[in-house]
Amino acid sequence: MKAEIIAVGTELLLGEIINTNGQYIAKRLAELGIFVYYQTVVGDNPSRLRETYVQGFQRADLLITTGGLGPTQDDLTKEMAAEYFQKKLVLDISSLERISDYFKGRGLPLTEGNKKQALFPEGSQILPNDHGTAPGCILEKEGKILILLPGPPSEMIPMFEHYVVPYLQGFQEGILISKILHITGLGESHVEDQLQDLIKKQTNPTIAPYAKQGEVRLRITARSSTEQEGLLLIQPVEKEIRKRLGIHIYGTDETTLEQEIVRLLLEKNKTLSIAESCTGGMICSRLVNYPGVSEVLLEGAVTYSNEAKMSRLGVAKETLKQYGAVSEETAQEMAIGIGRTAQTDIGLSVTGIAGPGGGSKEKPVGLVYVGIFYNGKVEVKKLQFSGKRQKIRERVTVEALDWLRQKLLQMEVDEK
Amino acid sequence: MKAEIIAVGTELLLGEIINTNGQYIAKRLAELGIFVYYQTVVGDNPSRLRETYVQGFQRADLLITTGGLGPTQDDLTKEMAAEYFQKKLVLDISSLERISDYFKGRGLPLTEGNKKQALFPEGSQILPNDHGTAPGCILEKEGKILILLPGPPSEMIPMFEHYVVPYLQGFQEGILISKILHITGLGESHVEDQLQDLIKKQTNPTIAPYAKQGEVRLRITARSSTEQEGLLLIQPVEKEIRKRLGIHIYGTDETTLEQEIVRLLLEKNKTLSIAESCTGGMICSRLVNYPGVSEVLLEGAVTYSNEAKMSRLGVAKETLKQYGAVSEETAQEMAIGIGRTAQTDIGLSVTGIAGPGGGSKEKPVGLVYVGIFYNGKVEVKKLQFSGKRQKIRERVTVEALDWLRQKLLQMEVDEK
Repeated sequence: MKAEIIAVGTELLLGEIINTNGQYIAKRLAELGIFVYYQTVVGDNPSRLRETYVQGFQRADLLITTGGLGPTQDDLTKEMAAEYFQKKLVLDISSLERISDYFKGRGLPLTEGNKKQALFPEGSQILPNDHGTAPGCILEKEGKILILLPGPPSEMIPMFEHYVVPYLQGFQEGILISKILHITGLGESHVEDQLQDLIKKQTNPTIAPYAKQGEVRLRITARSSTEQEGLLLIQPVEKEIRKRLGIHIYGTDETTLEQEIVRLLLEKNKTLSIAESCTGGMICSRLVNYPGVSEVLLEGAVTYSNEAKMSRLGVAKETLKQYGAVSEETAQEMAIGIGRTAQTDIGLSVTGIAGPGGGSKEKPVGLVYVGIFYNGKVEVKKLQFSGKRQKIRERVTVEALDWLRQKLLQMEVDEK
Repeated sequence: MKAEIIAVGTELLLGEIINTNGQYIAKRLAELGIFVYYQTVVGDNPSRLRETYVQGFQRADLLITTGGLGPTQDDLTKEMAAEYFQKKLVLDISSLERISDYFKGRGLPLTEGNKKQALFPEGSQILPNDHGTAPGCILEKEGKILILLPGPPSEMIPMFEHYVVPYLQGFQEGILISKILHITGLGESHVEDQLQDLIKKQTNPTIAPYAKQGEVRLRITARSSTEQEGLLLIQPVEKEIRKRLGIHIYGTDETTLEQEIVRLLLEKNKTLSIAESCTGGMICSRLVNYPGVSEVLLEGAVTYSNEAKMSRLGVAKETLKQYGAVSEETAQEMAIGIGRTAQTDIGLSVTGIAGPGGGSKEKPVGLVYVGIFYNGKVEVKKLQFSGKRQKIRERVTVEALDWLRQKLLQMEVDEK
């Protein structure tokens, strides 16, 4: 099956946002054994959208579009699809209700624009949007398939994974089974280095590393006739990879770093508090992503000012004066301070210079100290990052959480 | 002049890397007043490259390609360009010398592949590569222009800026000037509703709403012969839009919500502290995105547990018992508590149910109370969100910050 990916949106044409959807879908289609020969970006223009469908179906059997499903007049992907397939647009009641509920909660009325998001080409298969208002759809006619997906990646990706992938797998001989390993503490090229021979001689399963959200993911994909067989093919490959990457693999598939940390905290029966400075709440917020966290994360403090470090955490005035806010000593006292005042088993602290200002020759931008206090002892790790403020803060967050994870792995279970 | 941007490379088709070049060039062309109607991604395949040139020149006068200028057999962009323009490939001696020097310095021999990087379609204008080995080139014929640029952004961008931009500026009639308005508190369709007549009758300038990061942006674009004239065209349109959207517009162009809030805090000479529960540090972290925040944000507390609400913020045990952690009363006491203990002019609090668990009939998932304490008075706002945990937390963050912004606009300047 030949495919083409079409990203719709004038904001893409004008370079206001970047086309991450194209990359995501291309990667997944490759893994599903579907060849992509072209990708196209087109604006919110009826005649050019029409032209894109015409040309697309001349050279491919499957077109996947992203974008243009919104509530504004510029959102035309469905309308032009209906026109191309010569179908009427019909109202789907349950979609309309879902959209209505979404806005009711925000105290906003349903607009005409929102209503059109519940219109679909007659006979199309509707794909629910569990993360936004615009459902997608699949149209089929005479061997040609058109799949319309929303533009925002946070909506497109779940819809693609939950509904489109199973649909496409129906066209394949055999099935594809994947296992995704989550890796921290190594860059993509380092992972590739460690697994070079495996990657070079891969056939079935395939091994594909990719970067995502400051981590590296490794997708091992096996093609076979049953899920069982597929898993058996994956097993030895995973075993060998784990032998080489060891502690850097923190989880698989849907797991997140925060989920794994909460799991470990629960397993070891430990409570946690966090004192942040330059990360400003990002670390705490990351853990709170995971619903189970309330049992183990008792408190966080963002002690942005020196006063707050002293009054909230009991960091000594002398320490700040002699060593400065960004120092091993301050990180120690912050970790001890939060652990003691919040009365948790573990206190985690971060203090650093996120930039762009605040750096000096001795203490450059990107210098960060992470502290962990537990069992009456405190340990501090010194890290140096480069890049822009936001990137530094994000990297610190991952590194601090990963260090905590590794420490937790070594801890004894607390028999409270 | 109509343009099309073509990114060449099988690694792009397979989603192994992301097409940042497309975005970069698109943005710059828009600023230069050149309309991009399509973007295409095609693999390192001769016949599809040929097809892309043919189709491209049917619908555009200017084609800009990136990639495919490397030394490998797969690098075919120049070869297919020469074929399309019916030109021989000829050797450029100075390019060859430059490439040779580059490798000599690394102690490496010149390969056949590298030599082909010094071949160019006869009559083309060669664009030096100051950051790599592959020079680009410009071919012109009968009103059609083809510009070939290298793939790596670190090589493409300087070549584009130093050689292509001056070349293209020779072709322009006038320029495009844009102003982007940032809007909170309204959905994209609601913005469109309010501006329907303006959007309907738009000519010059154009008005385009789009969603970005939980906000709505409005791009007003004018075409004129000078920047001055363009701004004069934009002015009355912006004025009318501001009349209608009022306080929902928080900034323009590069401004962020956090930047505007910090600006207001500085302007009114007020300090801020934040007590969060379900947002878990997300609000604080959002403000810390902006480097200037250290002067006004003194402290944040993530009081995830009831104990922390009591011990850290002084929320009364009775209040929690009688009204619960998610209530107007608790939000009040949290705002007062953080403001007082952190000794700031303003205390902001958030308490809610992010889900998926924790909801009930009386207090469903998505119920959130936001409190603001200042001038000895406390105000609480009740909000109801729907959606997944992460989305709820993100929306609460934006709504809470936006409410703070609106309150700040009304405050007097503090003559400390």
